Formats: sequence, structure tokens, C-alpha cells
Amino acid sequence: MDTLYGGIEAGGTKFVCVVASGPDHILAQERFPTTNPAETISRTIRFFQPFVESQQVKSVGIAAFGPVDLDKRSKTFGYITTTPKPGWEQADLLGTIQRALKVPCGFDTDVNAAAFGEYYWIPENRDLDPLLYITVGTGIGVGGIVNGQTLHGLIHPEAGHMFIPHDRTVDPFPGVCPFHEDCLEGLASGPSMAKRWGQPAETLPDDHPGWDLEAKYIGFLISNLILNFSPKRVVLGGGVPQHAGFIPKVRKLVQMQLNGYIQSPKVMDTIDELIVPPALGSQAGVMGAIALARTAVE
Amino acid sequence: MDTLYGGIEAGGTKFVCVVASGPDHILAQERFPTTNPAETISRTIRFFQPFVESQQVKSVGIAAFGPVDLDKRSKTFGYITTTPKPGWEQADLLGTIQRALKVPCGFDTDVNAAAFGEYYWIPENRDLDPLLYITVGTGIGVGGIVNGQTLHGLIHPEAGHMFIPHDRTVDPFPGVCPFHEDCLEGLASGPSMAKRWGQPAETLPDDHPGWDLEAKYIGFLISNLILNFSPKRVVLGGGVPQHAGFIPKVRKLVQMQLNGYIQSPKVMDTIDELIVPPALGSQAGVMGAIALARTAVE
Repeated sequence: MDTLYGGIEAGGTKFVCVVASGPDHILAQERFPTTNPAETISRTIRFFQPFVESQQVKSVGIAAFGPVDLDKRSKTFGYITTTPKPGWEQADLLGTIQRALKVPCGFDTDVNAAAFGEYYWIPENRDLDPLLYITVGTGIGVGGIVNGQTLHGLIHPEAGHMFIPHDRTVDPFPGVCPFHEDCLEGLASGPSMAKRWGQPAETLPDDHPGWDLEAKYIGFLISNLILNFSPKRVVLGGGVPQHAGFIPKVRKLVQMQLNGYIQSPKVMDTIDELIVPPALGSQAGVMGAIALARTAVE
Repeated sequence: MDTLYGGIEAGGTKFVCVVASGPDHILAQERFPTTNPAETISRTIRFFQPFVESQQVKSVGIAAFGPVDLDKRSKTFGYITTTPKPGWEQADLLGTIQRALKVPCGFDTDVNAAAFGEYYWIPENRDLDPLLYITVGTGIGVGGIVNGQTLHGLIHPEAGHMFIPHDRTVDPFPGVCPFHEDCLEGLASGPSMAKRWGQPAETLPDDHPGWDLEAKYIGFLISNLILNFSPKRVVLGGGVPQHAGFIPKVRKLVQMQLNGYIQSPKVMDTIDELIVPPALGSQAGVMGAIALARTAVE
């Protein structure tokens, strides 16, 4: 029997808990809304407790919404830090789980975990370092694998808030980011689309001009990521990009924006191999958590 | 006696060759203009030949202008690739030197080498990974150390060409980049300043509005790099940023642009420790080449 691990995708709206050996073998799974930390973390612990007590699960990985403290030398390592989400500021997510379950725990951001999931479980991706994972939904997040490890630093990347060109003669919408107004997240998150067009993004018809504008902004994000990291793979996840025809549109715009400057066949010709939807679909994050759990005991 | 290494800063306008054990001990040094590849590379080889023949120098590091091929599995590894510089397209820089000198050679881009130089030789920087090195001069380049190694990928980063906000009501200048017109390099390189203001950047008086505009664009570059990499150190090199008062101006603009979103004391309070001039001054590149030579035989 394959060894089993625990994986937690700790999102701002819902938690997903799984017991699995990998993407092809999920033994148990539960998802529940993210309420206050006490209730949500208790429910998470209760889910894993029997598997840990029976010694079926020997380690757990946590893919957390953020910002989080990833510095192992810090007193608040594993905490959610400055979130506006009520009750979660300075919540000790990792410590509370680790003290209750008493097993080794891996910990990273949700988007770094998703990048790690795609890198770890999809054999062809093992040769594609740097690999970046983007999610476009309620917010815009970017995680990545660079030189074999996830991207950490002073804190962790927040590339969803990048400053990009905003031509107000074409798009007079001022943006919705409370910090930067018209940064990328301010112009291209799900909520910004909903506010600009007066209806939820997913209800916009295929030929609505909002999709071209959105593709242009996500194109700027990816063009800038290509210029920054020279990635071998860019995985475009989250709800918004899964709209029919959206990813092909983004690929064309990236080629137009870079305009022949990056002379790599993967950019010039086979860009459909460079910019791809997640091979693990919506499981990228939680399977990244399972991979974190595996590496926590390897 | 300390072991000696060869270092080559192969720039687009000049080559710098040194024999040194490190920044504090340079035995020999020569600089000459970059002409055609045959002449320039021969002169480089002639400089090192006696040191190699006497076995004083056992390895050489090359910090090259680009774009270059950094893929060790490629047939054109170590070549300059698609440069507009006459004669240098597809020039075999590394191979020609290695065949003549018959010693192990390290090879990287000039900006990755400069990042590596700052990281390798400055003890406090060893704890500051990710470390990024920016040069602003004839062009704008960015190199970096992430997870202990320089940044490679599909090719190598070209973050100087990032797409950033360009408010034409404030700055109607269209930009000079032949590929992207108003990308960062198009708006903020030395030549773009000269063209916008009708005089070379270094002749603009301290209170000229061009310095505020330039600081805003370099601020967007660094803000975006902080959002992308979460670096622990950003070294701001090249000619333009060394103008009196420029780096403090950039630090303030980065704080204004990020607007409290990155809640790290290094961004909020001690940004003068985050954004710094090169500790190695104009030697960062060639000392990076010496570090590459050392690691080529370690």
C-alpha cells in the first residue's frame, strides 16, 4: 500500500483537507467554509485526528492563504500575518495544527504549494524549472519554483500586485485595489471585472470586450514574469482563465507584447507549451500540500 | 600566497580582464574597447596566456553581455546569440577562450555575475538571498541569486524590458526601445534620458525634473522586483543611479508606490538596507567573474 499523507489547502473562503498518496489515490476528502480560526482549525484537526492516531498519516502539508510568515527562524513562523480577514490576523495556523496532531508539517503559501504540486507530480515539469503558477480569481497570486525550491524571500512574492501599463483612454476604470488602485489585481481580479462591467465575470458572454481587456492585463503579467524569471513553464490557474478561449487569447497577446524580443522557440512558436492550464486542475493546491507533507519527512 | 583566478567582464563597449584572488588583491588588469569578436577575443586570450602558462591562473570566469546561451546541454552554450552588435551575433565567446587557454571556465551574464560578485564577496550578503543586481546605463539589466544560484531559465531574465505604467499626460515622451517603445528600458535608459531632455543624463543639473521622473521609473522597476522576488537585497548599480541623491529618491518612491502593502520592516522602515549601491562599486561584474572562476574549480 502507498504511504498516505495529509494535505490542507487553507483558503480564504474554504478549507480543503485530503488524505492521499498522490493525485491518483485520494482516500478521504472534506471541504468546509473558512469561518473564524478557532472553529476552522479545530475542524481541520478533527478531520486528520483518526488518520494520525491510526498512524496511517505520518505528516501533513499546509498550503495557506496569506500573507504568511515563512521564515523558520521567526517566532511567528507559520502564522497568517496581516490579512484583512476578520480574526485571522496573527493566527498561528501551522503551530496550532502541529501541536494537536504531533506530526511533521510542511508549510508554504497556497500559490507556492500549487507551483510545487504541478512541479512535483507532473513528470515533464521536473525539467521545467523555473516553473511559475498563477491564479486569477478573487485575487491574483503567483508562486514559483526557482532552482529547485519554492520562492521565499523577505516575505514571499506578491506579483499579483505588479504595476503594469493602464491606458485610461481605452480603460477609464480606476481599479479596485485598496493599496494601489490600478495595480494588476486592481485592474484584472474577478471583483474588478465584476465592478467594471456591472456583472460577475463568469456571466460575461464569450464575445464581450471584457475578455480581450482581461487577456491584455494577464498578458502583461505573464510578459513581465517571462522578463523577470525566464520561466520554462507558466501554469495559469484559478477561475477566470478557465473561461473558453481565454488562454489562447493570452498566449497571442504575450507574443504581441514581447514582440520578438525573447528569441526562444517556446515564446516565438510553441507558446502553447509555455503557458498552460494546470495539469492537476483545481487539485494543484491541495496536491502541492501533499507534496509538502512528503518532503517534510523525506 | 592566495590562489589567483582570471576574470573577464565582456561588455558591449569594453572588455575588462583581471587576474586576482579577490577584490582586495588584483595582480594585473587591462581594459580595452570591444571591437570585432576576432580581435577582442584574441586580445583577451593574449592577456591571460602568460598567467595560464606559468600555472598562476588555473581557471577563468566570464561575465558576458547578452543575450547569451546559458544552457549547458545546448550546442551553442557560451555563445552571444541575437545581439545587434555587428559581428557578435552567434559569436562563440566561451568556446574560443576555453580552447585557447585550456582551463575550466565559468560563464554567466554580466548582471548575473555582478549579482554573484556582490553575494560571494560581501559577507553580509550571504544571508540576503534572493539578492538582485540592477544596472542602469546604456541599457537596463537585472541579474539575481535565488535559492543559492544565479537566475537562468528558458534564456535568462531581461527584466530591464518590463512593462510599467507610463502616464503620457505627465511624460509624453514615446520611449526609445526598438522592440517595445515605452517599456522600462525605452523610458529610463541613459539614451532615453538623453533623447527626452536633449542632453546626456550626466549633464542634467541635480534639480532637473528628469531625475524625479527617472526615479519614478526605476522605482516601478524595483517595486515590481520586490513584488516578484521578495528580495532581501537590491543592489542598484550602473552609471545613472550613482548621480548624487538619486538612490534616496528611489527608496522614497518605492515606499510610496508599494504604499504599505509589503509589511516588512525592511520595506517600511529600513529601506536604505534593502536598496543599496554596489559594495564592490564598478568592480561588481569583474569580481563576479573571479567568483565564477573560483566556483568552476571548487
